[in-house]
Amino acid sequence: MQSNSNNSKKAIERIRIGRQDRDNVAAIFEGLRNGRRDALGKAITWVESNNINHFEKTEELLAMCLPHSGKSWRIGITGVPGVGKSTFIETFGMALIAAGKKVAVLAIDPSSQRSKGSILGDKTRMDELSKNEMAFVRPSPASDTLGGVTRATRESILLCEAAGFDVILVETVGVGQSETAVNGMVDFFLLLLLAGAGDELQGIKRGIMEMADAVLITKADGENVIAAKKASTQIKSALHLFPAAENGWTPTVEICSAIENIGIASFIDVLRSYFESITHTGWIWDNRTKQDIDWLHEAIRNEILQQFRSNPANLKSIAAIEEDVKNKVITPFAAASKVVKKDP
Amino acid sequence: MQSNSNNSKKAIERIRIGRQDRDNVAAIFEGLRNGRRDALGKAITWVESNNINHFEKTEELLAMCLPHSGKSWRIGITGVPGVGKSTFIETFGMALIAAGKKVAVLAIDPSSQRSKGSILGDKTRMDELSKNEMAFVRPSPASDTLGGVTRATRESILLCEAAGFDVILVETVGVGQSETAVNGMVDFFLLLLLAGAGDELQGIKRGIMEMADAVLITKADGENVIAAKKASTQIKSALHLFPAAENGWTPTVEICSAIENIGIASFIDVLRSYFESITHTGWIWDNRTKQDIDWLHEAIRNEILQQFRSNPANLKSIAAIEEDVKNKVITPFAAASKVVKKDP
Repeated sequence: MQSNSNNSKKAIERIRIGRQDRDNVAAIFEGLRNGRRDALGKAITWVESNNINHFEKTEELLAMCLPHSGKSWRIGITGVPGVGKSTFIETFGMALIAAGKKVAVLAIDPSSQRSKGSILGDKTRMDELSKNEMAFVRPSPASDTLGGVTRATRESILLCEAAGFDVILVETVGVGQSETAVNGMVDFFLLLLLAGAGDELQGIKRGIMEMADAVLITKADGENVIAAKKASTQIKSALHLFPAAENGWTPTVEICSAIENIGIASFIDVLRSYFESITHTGWIWDNRTKQDIDWLHEAIRNEILQQFRSNPANLKSIAAIEEDVKNKVITPFAAASKVVKKDP
Repeated sequence: MQSNSNNSKKAIERIRIGRQDRDNVAAIFEGLRNGRRDALGKAITWVESNNINHFEKTEELLAMCLPHSGKSWRIGITGVPGVGKSTFIETFGMALIAAGKKVAVLAIDPSSQRSKGSILGDKTRMDELSKNEMAFVRPSPASDTLGGVTRATRESILLCEAAGFDVILVETVGVGQSETAVNGMVDFFLLLLLAGAGDELQGIKRGIMEMADAVLITKADGENVIAAKKASTQIKSALHLFPAAENGWTPTVEICSAIENIGIASFIDVLRSYFESITHTGWIWDNRTKQDIDWLHEAIRNEILQQFRSNPANLKSIAAIEEDVKNKVITPFAAASKVVKKDP
């Protein structure tokens, strides 16, 4: 059975979407619903596209996908470069697949636009996971703004869900503002930390610690085990001093080794009991609705601001008034009134 | 000398601002610069006023005050009800006055608008401080919005500085969003906590801990001393796990008793060395400019949004689209485009 189903899936996957259907919403949607990764990839490209020709099609496709979305575990993962994020996601993703889950990996890395690098751009990363047909790995979208990146990633989550993925991992870099954005689109936030002489949180921005639903101390193998255990104990007692999260969950702190496959299975157990708990209380649905409404208002603000800034005269007067504020000629509020009132 | 100067100050204060000068910017400004509390009170009333007739006068007055502002220590203080905030501020304020400082106390409490109570509305609070002519105590402004309250408080800081106050204490309740707003208008953020069986942070919102430049465990007297010291040690080690603040400052954690005047003088020493350090590095000025620019952009967004919402048709379509988003008919981003594009 399993093997037959796998074979037929492979057969479906082999039929590439025809060129004539490329821009066909119905064809993409059907491909998506059949779990075809090429259709998913195409759909995400639409979502990421700034091309005005795609807007209507994208919105149509998203509207079709919405009723089929929402069934996955949405998990944010952060940690500074060097913490072993890709290695962790590779092992973690394969363990999820072994547990019968389909796994999508998305990324938010606004810095990659500046540095022209990308946290998921390196093709050699997550090699095994990328090749597995139960997985879908997508690099960080190219966009000039954090807003653009987060919108693309958020809508990609819906597409992945409509394509039948059970776990969506949203990866971010742990040094910027993207964590707050990711926190606003996931159900669970995982912080990866490296043990080492009190420097565990080096590079991690203030505030990220308090978002974490779980902390995993990575690379807890060989000589690192003792330091990792020590860090784990310290962070556990620190987190216990924190106020409880709104959903009543107490963040867990454990050690893991992606290379030796230690702590991965038990972390999946943690996730399982977390999602059972928040599904049971209904918090997951309340929280997602709250996230949606927050995004709506944020997006309305951004749209209006963009309209305002599309007038070059307004851009110029903002720049001029910034100087006045810096020189303490005017208060920020009076300055804002002056700029906005000017607008016809 | 000191007594003469005090006498002449009292004499100036006795001459009430004439009715005819009440709405006179120059008179208010002169009163302010002479450190007259009645002029300061009047100026803050203007700032708090939603009356359109006051706008121009207020902006003129603020523009006159700006060059004389910026010389104070701006300190945010938060803690849940019951932590002993008023008692602390009373003792702390009197100690600052004894150290030669003029002290203004402002408050942000958006919840007081909802509950019709006010954290500083109770006239019996800070009795000694309120009566002292080196102090100025102002209740939380009445406004319907957090935005309105924060704007009023922020501009009141400038007025207090122009009136010669050396330390501005901005009090908030520690349970809502107002902490982030206060953090954006002060140089130093103090968190007051109560010791007690691991419940130290009960009621304090996540994220506030990481804003703190100092934590004081209050009511460390009598039988509480041991518990307070224990809590202090725990929190100190927890905070050491946190990433360092941008300005390099490591948050201090100490115990205090407002009633027995323990830990107050040493906290003033902490403040003194903090402000010496950030003045020396110049961080204080960079940070204030950054705060101003952040407020400017925030205020521009708010003004534009307000203009948009002033059209009843827009308000109506926002409400309708919220339902669509809740019912998962449309994504938040597509919804936002739809609402904003409609606007002529």
